[in-house]
Amino acid sequence: MKLSRADLKDLCRGAAFLGTGGGGNPYIGRLMVEQAMDLGHSVEIIDPSEVPDDALVIPTAMMGAPTVLIEKLPRGDEAIKSLQKLEQFIGRKAYATMPIEVGGINSTIPLVVGAHLGLPVVDGDGMGRAFPELQMETFAVYGVPGTPMAISNEYGDCTLIETHNNWMMEWLARGVAIRMGGAAYIAEYVMNGADVKRTAVPNTLSLALKIGKCIREARERHADPMQALIDLLPKTPYSFGKIIFTGKIVDIKRETRAGFAQGRARIQGTDSWQGLMEIEIQNENLIARVDGKVRAIVPDLICVLDNETAEPITTEELRYGQRVAVMAVAVPPIMRTPEALAVFGPKAFGFDHPFTPIEQLG
Amino acid sequence: MKLSRADLKDLCRGAAFLGTGGGGNPYIGRLMVEQAMDLGHSVEIIDPSEVPDDALVIPTAMMGAPTVLIEKLPRGDEAIKSLQKLEQFIGRKAYATMPIEVGGINSTIPLVVGAHLGLPVVDGDGMGRAFPELQMETFAVYGVPGTPMAISNEYGDCTLIETHNNWMMEWLARGVAIRMGGAAYIAEYVMNGADVKRTAVPNTLSLALKIGKCIREARERHADPMQALIDLLPKTPYSFGKIIFTGKIVDIKRETRAGFAQGRARIQGTDSWQGLMEIEIQNENLIARVDGKVRAIVPDLICVLDNETAEPITTEELRYGQRVAVMAVAVPPIMRTPEALAVFGPKAFGFDHPFTPIEQLG
Repeated sequence: MKLSRADLKDLCRGAAFLGTGGGGNPYIGRLMVEQAMDLGHSVEIIDPSEVPDDALVIPTAMMGAPTVLIEKLPRGDEAIKSLQKLEQFIGRKAYATMPIEVGGINSTIPLVVGAHLGLPVVDGDGMGRAFPELQMETFAVYGVPGTPMAISNEYGDCTLIETHNNWMMEWLARGVAIRMGGAAYIAEYVMNGADVKRTAVPNTLSLALKIGKCIREARERHADPMQALIDLLPKTPYSFGKIIFTGKIVDIKRETRAGFAQGRARIQGTDSWQGLMEIEIQNENLIARVDGKVRAIVPDLICVLDNETAEPITTEELRYGQRVAVMAVAVPPIMRTPEALAVFGPKAFGFDHPFTPIEQLG
Repeated sequence: MKLSRADLKDLCRGAAFLGTGGGGNPYIGRLMVEQAMDLGHSVEIIDPSEVPDDALVIPTAMMGAPTVLIEKLPRGDEAIKSLQKLEQFIGRKAYATMPIEVGGINSTIPLVVGAHLGLPVVDGDGMGRAFPELQMETFAVYGVPGTPMAISNEYGDCTLIETHNNWMMEWLARGVAIRMGGAAYIAEYVMNGADVKRTAVPNTLSLALKIGKCIREARERHADPMQALIDLLPKTPYSFGKIIFTGKIVDIKRETRAGFAQGRARIQGTDSWQGLMEIEIQNENLIARVDGKVRAIVPDLICVLDNETAEPITTEELRYGQRVAVMAVAVPPIMRTPEALAVFGPKAFGFDHPFTPIEQLG
C-alpha cells in the first residue's frame, strides 16, 4: 500500500491514540514524512505476510524523553544512519524496516527511513502501543535478540551495542541517549521475515490509520468521535474500549528524569460524584486510579483525549485546564500472555497491582 | 624485551609513580599479568621503532573511577574482547597493542592483552602519565582519531562508539562506563606504526621500569629513594623532579561523581612554617597549592609518595595520617606544547592558572 498525504494525517492521529500518551510527538513525525514526500519519495507499507521468511528486517525508532523531543528536533537522517551502520556491522542489506513501537512519532520514523532508502515498511510493530523501555517488546518476549543495536544523534555520532541481556541493552542505550541530549535514533531487533510473522503485533500501522480516519470522519459528519471509536474497536484485535473518566486536568507534575518524562496527571471529574483521577506517567500513561482505585492498568491502553474532538493528547502536551475524556482499550492477546506481562506488565513498572483486563475493571 | 616477574614489580611501582595518583590501582594490574604468566604466556615489549609504519596498533586500557576499580575487580578478558571487537569492526588484525596511559593499571592492561593474544606491546603511551579523560591524549593532540572505540564489561557486553569529536567520544564512553558500573575496558585510537612514532610519548613503559627499579635498589642499599629518583630523572625525558612538600595527610574528601574519583587531599607540613598543602583530584592529582599558592600544576606530575619508602600512593589509597612526600616532575616537551596544553593543560580542568613548568615554580 502506498501511503498518501491524507492517509498520513489519519495515521499520525491514530498513532498518537495507540501511543497511550507516549511514543513521541506525532506532529514532528508527520512533518518529517511530508518533507520526504516533498522530495519525491514515497512510502510503501507491506503486510508481514509479504516479507520472505529469510529477508532481513531492521526496525528503526526514536528513543528518549518526549519532553526533550519537542525542543530538540531531529536533523532527519539519524535513524537512517543507525540502520546503515547496522547493515555495515552485520554485512547484510535490509529488505525492509518497521516500527518497534506504533505509538506517536515511532510509527512515522520508519516511514521516513523507508521513504529515503526506498525500503518498504512492514505493517506491524513490537509493542502494539508505546512503552518507555527497549526491552518491552513482543520481539524480545518471543525470543528475538535486541542487539546489535545502533544509536545515532544529529551530529552523525553513532554507538553500537552488543549484549545478550535486553535489560542491559536498555540500560546502556538509555545512558547513551541521555548523553546525546535526551533523544536519539535507533535501529535494533534485527530479524528475518519468519521472526516478524511470529513475534510482531501485526497490522498496527493500518490500525493506526483506521483509528485516525474513524475519528476524523466522525467529526466530519458531526457524530461523536468517542462513540465511533468504541464502535470501531471490536472489529480490530484491540477488541474493547470504554470511557473510564471525563473531567478537567487540575494538576500536572512532569519532569525529565533518568532519560524519561516522568510524572502524574490529576483530573477532576466533571460531576462531583466522579471524584479525582490520577494517572502515573513514564513517557506513557501507565496506571489510572480514581480516588485510589485502579481503573485501568498497563499494558492496556490509557488514552487521554480532547473531550470534544477526541484528539489524543500526548503526555508532554498535557496542560492545566484541558477538558478530557480518558479511554481505556484492551490490547491483543499476544500482549497479555504471562510471558508478555512479565516483560511489560504492571510489575515491570513497579506497580503492586496485578494486571486486570479493562473488560473486568468496573 | 621479554618482561620478567621481577621486572613486572618494578614496572608497576614506576607506573604508579607516573600515574600521578591515578590510572587505576597497579596492584590489581600486576596480579593480572602474573596470572597470564602462570598460564605460560609471556610479555614482549617492543620499541616504537620496531613497529612497521603500516602495521596496525590497537591500544587498550581500563577506564573509570579508581575508587570503583578496587571494589569491582575485572574478570580479566574485557580489554581483549574490546580489541577483538575493533579488529572485527575494521576488518584487520592488530600487529601490536600499547598503553593509552602509562599510569597505574593502564600500563599493565596492554601487557595482559598482549600476553593472552601473543601480541607485542609497544613501549610508549598517549599520556606520558595518567589523565582522567579519553581526549587527553598526545595521540589526539597530534591528529589520531580516537574512534572507532570499543568498551566492554565483565559480562561480555560491548559498545562501539564512532564520532569525529574526541570530546564526544569521552562523553559517550564515560556514560557507558558509568552504566557498566563505573569501570570498563576499552580499545581506542587505532593507528598505524607511523602514527605511533609521530604521536606517542615514547619509551614510557621502560621508563616506568627504570623508576620502579631505582626506588627498589635505593631501598635495598639503604639509600634515600627520593634522592635516587631526583638523580635519575635528568637522565630521562622527564628532566627534573623535586620534593615540594612533606607532611601528614590531615583531611581527605573523595567521592565517586560523574564516573570519576573527585576530591581533594590536605597535607599539614611536618614543620609549622611549611603551612598546609591542598591537592585537587580528578582521578589524578591535578594541582597542588600551599596556603593558596600554586606549587605544581597539570600536566606536570604531582606524585604523593610514602615518606620513608617512596612507594607511590594512588588517590584512592590516600588515608588520614599517612606521612608523605610530594614530588613534582617535569613532563617531556611533547606534552608541554601549546596544542598539548590546550587539551590537557590547567584550563582543560577549569583551573584559572596558567601552566607554569615546575622548574620555574618556587
